[in-house]
Amino acid sequence: MREGGIKKMKALAVIAVCAAIFGLIVAFILARWIKNSDQGTDRMKEIAGFIREGAFAFLKREYKIMAIVIIVLALAIGFGLQSVTTALLYVFGAVLSVLAGFFGMNVATLGNVRTANAAMESGMNKALKIAFRSGAVTGLAVACLGLFGLGMVVVILDLATVVQCITGFGFGASSMALFGRVGGGIYTKAADVGADLVGKVEAGIPEDDPRNPAVIADNVGDNVGDVAGMGSDIYESYCGSIISAITLAAVAAGASGGLFEEATAAIFPLIIAAVGVIASVIGVLMVGGKEGSNPANALNAGTYISSGVVVIISVILSKIMLGSFAFSIAIIAGLVVGVAIGKITEIFTSEEYKSVKKIAEQSQTGSATTIISGMGVGMMSTVWPIIFIAIGIFAAYYSTETVGAGMGMYGIALAAVGMLSTTGMTVAVDAYGPVSDNAGGIAEMAELPEEVRSITDKLDAVGNTTAAIGKGFAIGSAALTALALFASYSEVTDLSVVSLLDPIVIIGLFIGAMLPFMFSAFTMNSVGKAANDMIEEVRRQFRADEGILAGTSKPDYAHCVDISTKAALKEMIVPGIMAIVAPLAVGIILGPEALGGMLAGALSAGVLLALMMANAGGAWDNAKKYIEGGAYGGKGSDTHKAAVVGDTVGDPFKDTSGPSLNILIKLMTIVAVVFAPLFVAINGLVG
Amino acid sequence: MREGGIKKMKALAVIAVCAAIFGLIVAFILARWIKNSDQGTDRMKEIAGFIREGAFAFLKREYKIMAIVIIVLALAIGFGLQSVTTALLYVFGAVLSVLAGFFGMNVATLGNVRTANAAMESGMNKALKIAFRSGAVTGLAVACLGLFGLGMVVVILDLATVVQCITGFGFGASSMALFGRVGGGIYTKAADVGADLVGKVEAGIPEDDPRNPAVIADNVGDNVGDVAGMGSDIYESYCGSIISAITLAAVAAGASGGLFEEATAAIFPLIIAAVGVIASVIGVLMVGGKEGSNPANALNAGTYISSGVVVIISVILSKIMLGSFAFSIAIIAGLVVGVAIGKITEIFTSEEYKSVKKIAEQSQTGSATTIISGMGVGMMSTVWPIIFIAIGIFAAYYSTETVGAGMGMYGIALAAVGMLSTTGMTVAVDAYGPVSDNAGGIAEMAELPEEVRSITDKLDAVGNTTAAIGKGFAIGSAALTALALFASYSEVTDLSVVSLLDPIVIIGLFIGAMLPFMFSAFTMNSVGKAANDMIEEVRRQFRADEGILAGTSKPDYAHCVDISTKAALKEMIVPGIMAIVAPLAVGIILGPEALGGMLAGALSAGVLLALMMANAGGAWDNAKKYIEGGAYGGKGSDTHKAAVVGDTVGDPFKDTSGPSLNILIKLMTIVAVVFAPLFVAINGLVG
Repeated sequence: MREGGIKKMKALAVIAVCAAIFGLIVAFILARWIKNSDQGTDRMKEIAGFIREGAFAFLKREYKIMAIVIIVLALAIGFGLQSVTTALLYVFGAVLSVLAGFFGMNVATLGNVRTANAAMESGMNKALKIAFRSGAVTGLAVACLGLFGLGMVVVILDLATVVQCITGFGFGASSMALFGRVGGGIYTKAADVGADLVGKVEAGIPEDDPRNPAVIADNVGDNVGDVAGMGSDIYESYCGSIISAITLAAVAAGASGGLFEEATAAIFPLIIAAVGVIASVIGVLMVGGKEGSNPANALNAGTYISSGVVVIISVILSKIMLGSFAFSIAIIAGLVVGVAIGKITEIFTSEEYKSVKKIAEQSQTGSATTIISGMGVGMMSTVWPIIFIAIGIFAAYYSTETVGAGMGMYGIALAAVGMLSTTGMTVAVDAYGPVSDNAGGIAEMAELPEEVRSITDKLDAVGNTTAAIGKGFAIGSAALTALALFASYSEVTDLSVVSLLDPIVIIGLFIGAMLPFMFSAFTMNSVGKAANDMIEEVRRQFRADEGILAGTSKPDYAHCVDISTKAALKEMIVPGIMAIVAPLAVGIILGPEALGGMLAGALSAGVLLALMMANAGGAWDNAKKYIEGGAYGGKGSDTHKAAVVGDTVGDPFKDTSGPSLNILIKLMTIVAVVFAPLFVAINGLVG
Repeated sequence: MREGGIKKMKALAVIAVCAAIFGLIVAFILARWIKNSDQGTDRMKEIAGFIREGAFAFLKREYKIMAIVIIVLALAIGFGLQSVTTALLYVFGAVLSVLAGFFGMNVATLGNVRTANAAMESGMNKALKIAFRSGAVTGLAVACLGLFGLGMVVVILDLATVVQCITGFGFGASSMALFGRVGGGIYTKAADVGADLVGKVEAGIPEDDPRNPAVIADNVGDNVGDVAGMGSDIYESYCGSIISAITLAAVAAGASGGLFEEATAAIFPLIIAAVGVIASVIGVLMVGGKEGSNPANALNAGTYISSGVVVIISVILSKIMLGSFAFSIAIIAGLVVGVAIGKITEIFTSEEYKSVKKIAEQSQTGSATTIISGMGVGMMSTVWPIIFIAIGIFAAYYSTETVGAGMGMYGIALAAVGMLSTTGMTVAVDAYGPVSDNAGGIAEMAELPEEVRSITDKLDAVGNTTAAIGKGFAIGSAALTALALFASYSEVTDLSVVSLLDPIVIIGLFIGAMLPFMFSAFTMNSVGKAANDMIEEVRRQFRADEGILAGTSKPDYAHCVDISTKAALKEMIVPGIMAIVAPLAVGIILGPEALGGMLAGALSAGVLLALMMANAGGAWDNAKKYIEGGAYGGKGSDTHKAAVVGDTVGDPFKDTSGPSLNILIKLMTIVAVVFAPLFVAINGLVG
């Protein structure tokens, strides 16, 4: 029976790997289709070439540092934990993350110019299709590479080794997400704020004007932050949730009273993920969009279709594989929470609803009231996501706990897996945004006709909303994944209790709650410093060659790209080290219980702070756009100026500090899980 | 032996009550001394009369609502818990809080004009003395009324009843602090922001100009928020910490292995508080100040002297009464944490240090960078206070835990008692600020000579720093008090474990962490709404009578006072109900463990958010002052304008939302403690 269970598991893991490969093939075909589309005029090609060049210049330098980090951490794991397998899996997880980022950036920088050209030559429908399919390649790459990697691990290694070492894979994903999200976040906002402050404010030239030396860096930044950065964040959640379920499989099997084996419980999340990949492919191919219709509807339809597929199949598989429908309730709970957080985010950040309108209204009395009301909106926007997360935890835990006492934590991990199962589709919608944004930038720089710009603007407006929703989803998925990994942590350390009545846990809790604030302070200051470097460089170029502003000579785009790249990679060192060292220090010095408190504190405070910052930033952005649409005096009015201040404050909030907190909470938890044996050995804990 | 212990306790309680009465007599003498000082010119008397009238108009209306709330909650306690004693103690605790606020406001509104006059007639030394002694009356009233009330309870009731019902006293203190801090915070900032936006920005008249109809409300607001509000907050912490120690006395005695009895452990915190009162009186009388010297030195000397007295005597008493020096370590830990947080706050909010200078520097690139850098400073400022709180908890717990296993929680309560023992002195220094501020306002409105204003400015500048330090102290004391009460909660509910591995605790933790954000959103929006009401009224008066701006006819000050009063009391209803209902709802629906998680989540996230908001606000305020002192172009420059935006955003941060969080975390915890028997009865918990 046990032998048979393992065999079945291996067979199913092969199926999961096949699904992943299928998804990758679809992604490849989509990429080919995009590449074969027409690029448009020479000027467009030239601009797109600059962006692509800049993007790869960033990647190249980032890869060098990543390679060093991968080697150093792999050695640290290998020696610290005396486990070559864990170290190798760390490298595997990291390399696949890098690959996903590379594929995403590659196709996004092909898709942008082709989207602009399609808008010019064929209209909205084709443009939407190219932009969305570019995003879909990123989405499928993120999900399928994650599934492929984890599936291969299960195929190759024996189950005991998988359970013991697979967290190394997650740590690889996490440490690369640090580069993607934190480094990428600093890059994109340094370029954006720098370009805006000198270009729009000092030199008085419009956004995306080719005379601005930082304009290419700004467009590169959209790809670095919103494609590669976001992708690496979700990849981390995706892998983390599955890994957590695998490490809890033994407990679940034990609690099931013979209903299913550990091997079945371990393979189940991979099969759900495989279903999600197929569902995402279906969803992706369904997104068409009719000429003249609202592109948001097409994207929403795709999301609902793929979610629906997962729901139906997970109900069946839950009963067949694990002998109870209860597990599908956990999966559906995760899916519902993800969709709900997206919808709530939209309500607080879209100009269709009252929060954004209120900020716009408050901007009439100046920028101070813009900021105060935006902070209020950000804070208020945390309420419903937290309530949904609470309900999701409740449903996932107690539904599965009815199957057998002790099963609940596995249920929470399944909720995270469920939420992330449609990653292929979710990331596709999210990564569609920066491609459209870039397309608009290229249209502007290449001075394409007004109608083209109006199509790309329409696509971009939808992209702003999907980006905000994507941020909410990323935070929600980080919360559930970190919580699932927290359960794995208690399992690995054999802790049966982490009591808040133990003062060392309270000390950990306080320190943990403080870390997101400290981390955000670091990342915000980093954006400030990096933006200053950029400002200096743009000013220098304007001074050195007056022909740049006159439009007679070309600015040195590459140097600005270089500045952003260097600054981003330099500025992420301190927060990066902090995120890895903090759990190690607390675990070693104060022990595993204190670390448990710290993780819970960082998780709760981090999620709240991330929601507040992301949503305040999104709301400020759209309040400005709402005014630009003609409200309260429109563009150029004092109200608009006040709203611009809100938008500028919101930039690092929503694109750097807020999303970076996702990484912090997941990375610290995975470090805790990976190094748990060390803390236990040092502190001599017996559960 | 047991009989003897109770007798000794009663005798010591009488001594504590006597110390309280002694302190009140000193306060009374100081108040007489202030009242007998000269008030100055008729114009000064008239203005001071307006402020005093406005302050009492606010109090009168507030008392009416307070009376209703006291009756309703007393009935709820009486019926809900079936305990007349608890209900009566609730009323007692509430009434003494109201009295402390009344005494403080009374003397502050006498001291302000006399400080101005002393600055005119006798110079800095006398002015400092009057302002400080006005603050000292508040400080002594807060500490001595708290000590008197709790001492009387111990004198009159038998020990079992004291332990069972004294939390009602704390709930009384807490519910009145809600009015003081939250209502007061909304009042003061509605008046301030309203007066500034219409007066300074629209009408272009300077601060404290008598033509501004809101100017009296603004000056009343300083007293309402910074005297009565702050006093009620600290009074709540003061009582809460002692109450927590009393409820933990039985556990401590049990853990001591016969070293001391419950009665001794219960009376010990009151004796330490009595020592603190005497130490504060000594400190207060030592504050003299030489002509021309820095007033801050005189205030600091007083603080250090009273802390020193408490340290020495607590070492002796700890050994004599409880048989071990360990308890004095806890007390000293609390004192040190209090002083350390004050110092850290100063470093982050005083213009002498680099954080404030950096905000000023960043203001050169506009208000967006002012806000971003200020948020960064606020976030970074949380790090050291949390580390000190963590060290304090560690020292207090583990030092006392060595005396006997299970003693540690009593040690944490003693740390809170130690921190708050010198409340008389701490609040004196803090309440000195608004008196000097008012004195400056009166000097301006009465058009006193330039030299007078320069003295009051000097006093006011010191007052700004002491106010910022006081805010840090208030947050730190709220954190320790809430933690101590949390220990009491676990004791009362007989919970032996509140495990973070229990999902219901995690759900509570998430909800708890969310509440401070929600609460802050409410209070910030309230300030916005109330300020708008004020703006409308001022505009209406300017329109209705053009003579007001010309200076030929007098504005209707009373109506503005009325607007602020009404708005403040109306706007605090929702957050107030939320703070009381949230723990009840979670406790009843999700049970005592979930409530434990919620309290911990609210405590950790609340302290962080409060520190961030208070310190960011303080730093923005002083960055503006630093620029006004001549840096980066000085007053009127673009840099200054950017800094003014930061200051305006900081106003509700530091004076409303931030400090209100102290109340939230303490009030929710005391509600949990008081109603614990109910939750246990409903959820049928056995520890």
